[in-house]
Amino acid sequence: MIKLVGFWVSPFVLRVSWALKLKGVEYEYIEEDVFNKSPLLLELNPVHKKVPVLVHGHNVIVESFVILEYIDETWKQYPLLPQEPYDRANTRFWAKFAEEKLMRNSWTAMCSQGEEKKLCLQSALEDLEKIEGELKGKGKFFGGENLGYLDLVLGWITYLVPVWEEIGSMTILDPVKFPCITAWMQNFLNHPVIKEDLPPREKVDAYFQNQRKEYAARMGSTNTG
Amino acid sequence: MIKLVGFWVSPFVLRVSWALKLKGVEYEYIEEDVFNKSPLLLELNPVHKKVPVLVHGHNVIVESFVILEYIDETWKQYPLLPQEPYDRANTRFWAKFAEEKLMRNSWTAMCSQGEEKKLCLQSALEDLEKIEGELKGKGKFFGGENLGYLDLVLGWITYLVPVWEEIGSMTILDPVKFPCITAWMQNFLNHPVIKEDLPPREKVDAYFQNQRKEYAARMGSTNTG
Repeated sequence: MIKLVGFWVSPFVLRVSWALKLKGVEYEYIEEDVFNKSPLLLELNPVHKKVPVLVHGHNVIVESFVILEYIDETWKQYPLLPQEPYDRANTRFWAKFAEEKLMRNSWTAMCSQGEEKKLCLQSALEDLEKIEGELKGKGKFFGGENLGYLDLVLGWITYLVPVWEEIGSMTILDPVKFPCITAWMQNFLNHPVIKEDLPPREKVDAYFQNQRKEYAARMGSTNTG
Repeated sequence: MIKLVGFWVSPFVLRVSWALKLKGVEYEYIEEDVFNKSPLLLELNPVHKKVPVLVHGHNVIVESFVILEYIDETWKQYPLLPQEPYDRANTRFWAKFAEEKLMRNSWTAMCSQGEEKKLCLQSALEDLEKIEGELKGKGKFFGGENLGYLDLVLGWITYLVPVWEEIGSMTILDPVKFPCITAWMQNFLNHPVIKEDLPPREKVDAYFQNQRKEYAARMGSTNTG
């Protein structure tokens, strides 16, 4: 009995559902209302109260990176992480880097204004430059010819950054500056597992328009409060 | 040829040197001046410019959690992580939790004043309560009778929190509230590998007295600037 508790647009959830699908592991998906958390979520993840939660028999696993490692260790078919310790270390390093730097910088660049926006956008571009360097000379994907751990972790770039760019009136994914990432995005979006499991663009647009307004309201009330 | 670039008081470095010693891996230790970074560090870790850095032949690995996994995968003797995927997931979960919650909250509680201090201290105590719950019913250490991954990751509690408590005039490690953690600390500090590789208390004291003053100066200049 495998269950995934998730939220439709969450990049942390989608990377887990992509991983399960790549491995051919069948599971039941339970959509969570993250704005009005269910007793089930609070019971399953009392520490963080967040999705994704993977339930595998009596085992409850939370935190997307932890879940991905669990999936890779439990179902050995279609390995997600590379096999060599040094390649594994590199993969984990870039996964953490993208999560802590690029994601935060891109998000804040979308939400903010003026000097803060300028600085965050500049940082996001520098982060992306490093990832471009890492991808150069690789095959279709970060791990070579097959979609792997780092592709899944970075997958949010392909369906969130274009929306954030539009809402934030900014350019991050410049195809001239980042030819390898641009090609990778196409390969990623054309993969049959990904193509079937991405939220519709208009819905993502509407969601983040709203998120940005709420962020601005919060910041406004902090500044004047 | 194995080299570890570190800084004497850093909990991120010490967990790596403890891991190497537990495995019986010989290495050369290179002390870095983190306030005046060397060309070597900038060359080895251009992305984050931080210690620890592990150099193993041509492989350069950074970020302490990534290094610990690399060490455990490269030198199989004395496994640090448990063997079962679910136990491994739990270990990784609590490691991340302690790093992102308890460490930040304890540190800020030491440095801050007034309402902020009160809130951070309260959060640190709640974090520790969760870790106490995780430890209950275990053996001498988190993984049972042998020092393992989670012990190394949490090791900073044993030599930093007492200093932070003194400097911040606060109590975090109450032995009545946290009997399991108190017993674990003793077991940890009595382990031969740890006993031999801990910075001297007076030096740690002086270092953090200074760190706290600098934090206060930074905050002061932010508030008035």
